[in-house]
Amino acid sequence: MHKHELSTPCLVLELSRFEANLTLMARRAAAAGKLLRPHAKTHKCSQIALHQLAGGNCAGISAATMSEALGLARAGIENILITSPVVGADKISDLMRCQSLCRECIVVLDNYENALELQANAAENNIVLPVLLDLDPEMGRTGVSFEQAPELGKAISALPRLCLLGIQCYAGHLQHIPSATQRRSESQRLLHKGADIFKLLRAENAALRIFSGSGTGTASFDLQIEELTELQVGSYCLLDSEYAALEGERQLNFNDFCAAISLMSSVVSNNQSGHVTVDAGLKALYYTPDSPPLITQNAKVMPGWRYEWFGDEHGKVYYSGEKPVLNSKIELSLPHCDPSINLHEFIYVTQKDQVIDKWPVDLKKR
Amino acid sequence: MHKHELSTPCLVLELSRFEANLTLMARRAAAAGKLLRPHAKTHKCSQIALHQLAGGNCAGISAATMSEALGLARAGIENILITSPVVGADKISDLMRCQSLCRECIVVLDNYENALELQANAAENNIVLPVLLDLDPEMGRTGVSFEQAPELGKAISALPRLCLLGIQCYAGHLQHIPSATQRRSESQRLLHKGADIFKLLRAENAALRIFSGSGTGTASFDLQIEELTELQVGSYCLLDSEYAALEGERQLNFNDFCAAISLMSSVVSNNQSGHVTVDAGLKALYYTPDSPPLITQNAKVMPGWRYEWFGDEHGKVYYSGEKPVLNSKIELSLPHCDPSINLHEFIYVTQKDQVIDKWPVDLKKR
Repeated sequence: MHKHELSTPCLVLELSRFEANLTLMARRAAAAGKLLRPHAKTHKCSQIALHQLAGGNCAGISAATMSEALGLARAGIENILITSPVVGADKISDLMRCQSLCRECIVVLDNYENALELQANAAENNIVLPVLLDLDPEMGRTGVSFEQAPELGKAISALPRLCLLGIQCYAGHLQHIPSATQRRSESQRLLHKGADIFKLLRAENAALRIFSGSGTGTASFDLQIEELTELQVGSYCLLDSEYAALEGERQLNFNDFCAAISLMSSVVSNNQSGHVTVDAGLKALYYTPDSPPLITQNAKVMPGWRYEWFGDEHGKVYYSGEKPVLNSKIELSLPHCDPSINLHEFIYVTQKDQVIDKWPVDLKKR
Repeated sequence: MHKHELSTPCLVLELSRFEANLTLMARRAAAAGKLLRPHAKTHKCSQIALHQLAGGNCAGISAATMSEALGLARAGIENILITSPVVGADKISDLMRCQSLCRECIVVLDNYENALELQANAAENNIVLPVLLDLDPEMGRTGVSFEQAPELGKAISALPRLCLLGIQCYAGHLQHIPSATQRRSESQRLLHKGADIFKLLRAENAALRIFSGSGTGTASFDLQIEELTELQVGSYCLLDSEYAALEGERQLNFNDFCAAISLMSSVVSNNQSGHVTVDAGLKALYYTPDSPPLITQNAKVMPGWRYEWFGDEHGKVYYSGEKPVLNSKIELSLPHCDPSINLHEFIYVTQKDQVIDKWPVDLKKR
């Protein structure tokens, strides 16, 4: 079946482009002596995670939520890092279930009260829980400050049911800085601070072996941080137009990665001149007011065409040249892949535009 | 179970407030001699649709997409109006399936080419398809212009497998005009134009019996349009903070309707002073940059508290007074209910904050 025959709105992933992205990132990390910890928050799809592992050079998979981690574990993935604190009895109970399914399921923490709760649950379940200390890269989202990290690290090390394996320092707020120079200097400044904490804690505990961080926007610069052991890159595998628009660098030119995913929509009304209405609105394509999606054909941007959100179920497509007929297929880039993929139940996999598979977006909370 | 024990992020609906909204709208429409056609696009939840029907005074239920309609039909709802054109072989095939499940499943159309395709499919399935002519309320999304409507109406009437039952004129772009006076005058101007078309078509075809339109924002004014037969109101049943902020009118004071739905989130990190981090970001609460959600407690807005999106999975909550402890529950209003409910799999139903049921958001495309 050709992708134009799919019922719209729907996501399509071109396999060769996706696999080229996996290979490229695996090779670059390996050349720098680092592992990948691809982030499933990007796609919430265990099939993609399995392909990322098969792409090689991976320490495991990252998950942003406890439910993502449990879904990954149930899909057979045995090395998982949960990159946000797991707080509350219901989530910790899921964490204990996940431990029983995995070879190594690591969780980050940033708070001693949370550490004590994890310690109590680990004792009750008669396990030793592997943890990373979450450092706050001056963003204030999660993590302990660089200043307070040594003390919290030591306190965690003293808890017998927690096994401190290292640190996490993920600077989400830097990933989309347009200037490559500024993105590099900010990322390196923060990761060097993280590296100092890592060395300090390792001096007291030789078992420390993980320094996890980085993302698609800063990966090329972060490869230069000697202490960093693994990269939590997410969007690289599919790319999106916000990342593609960033200024790249020799080592990680975004033009080397390619947009592997797009949204198919159909013209459902064409009574106007200058624009047509398609069946993809807020519920199919996440609203990113400053960067609307690009309209593409055969992976090329169509000049003179433009998309605007037109309510919950509809989009407005300004065209150039002849007016698209009813039921024409209009292909759109994803500006920010994470929340848009999260709107869908499936990703259709294509090979040269022919549909060859259908992967469920199965890591959404059920 | 108390709603604070639910695993977050999750939606909660307080039953008494929801039912009060249903009763209020049903009573107001009945007093004006109109029926309701509650719109399932708001909630994509067949349990809510069934409650709306049970609330009385309904012509049936509205659906924005073919998959919503099919879901409603499978849930046993027999009177459905599909409010957007059904275009393309796959969608028309679903429409034919829906016809076999329903007593009356009406579809709107705005294009003669689409009419011919529907006619051919209806003939093949040996049915007569009930349709409404979709009028464009000068919005340019779907619908035929007022000027061209009489001609298209006549052409559709001449197709033997289509049974023209009336018109639809839904002015989505007016629903959120802040000034009640302006909202009323614009809505009445457009619906009077619709009424003229309705009378014109009915003069030639006495079978015409439906004039469907209106929404939560203009319902009170639209009740005054004599020819209007049914109101496609959506958000009234749950209300959201964007609607609640609008200037009301005696006949439809938004303060009479009450916010029946909210989002529960949990504090997952509280290392900062002035703000904490909760587990509800872009993937749990749709991004509405101009109207962030309100933070509420016992259905009252908490003064001095403020929410900001903090990435895909997190929110930043500025607090007033004592810092919330880890795992505190922070309740948020939905600014725009449609796309936010669409992010969830379930709606938890509460009675005085105790969880008594769990309704699946089952009308999402599968």
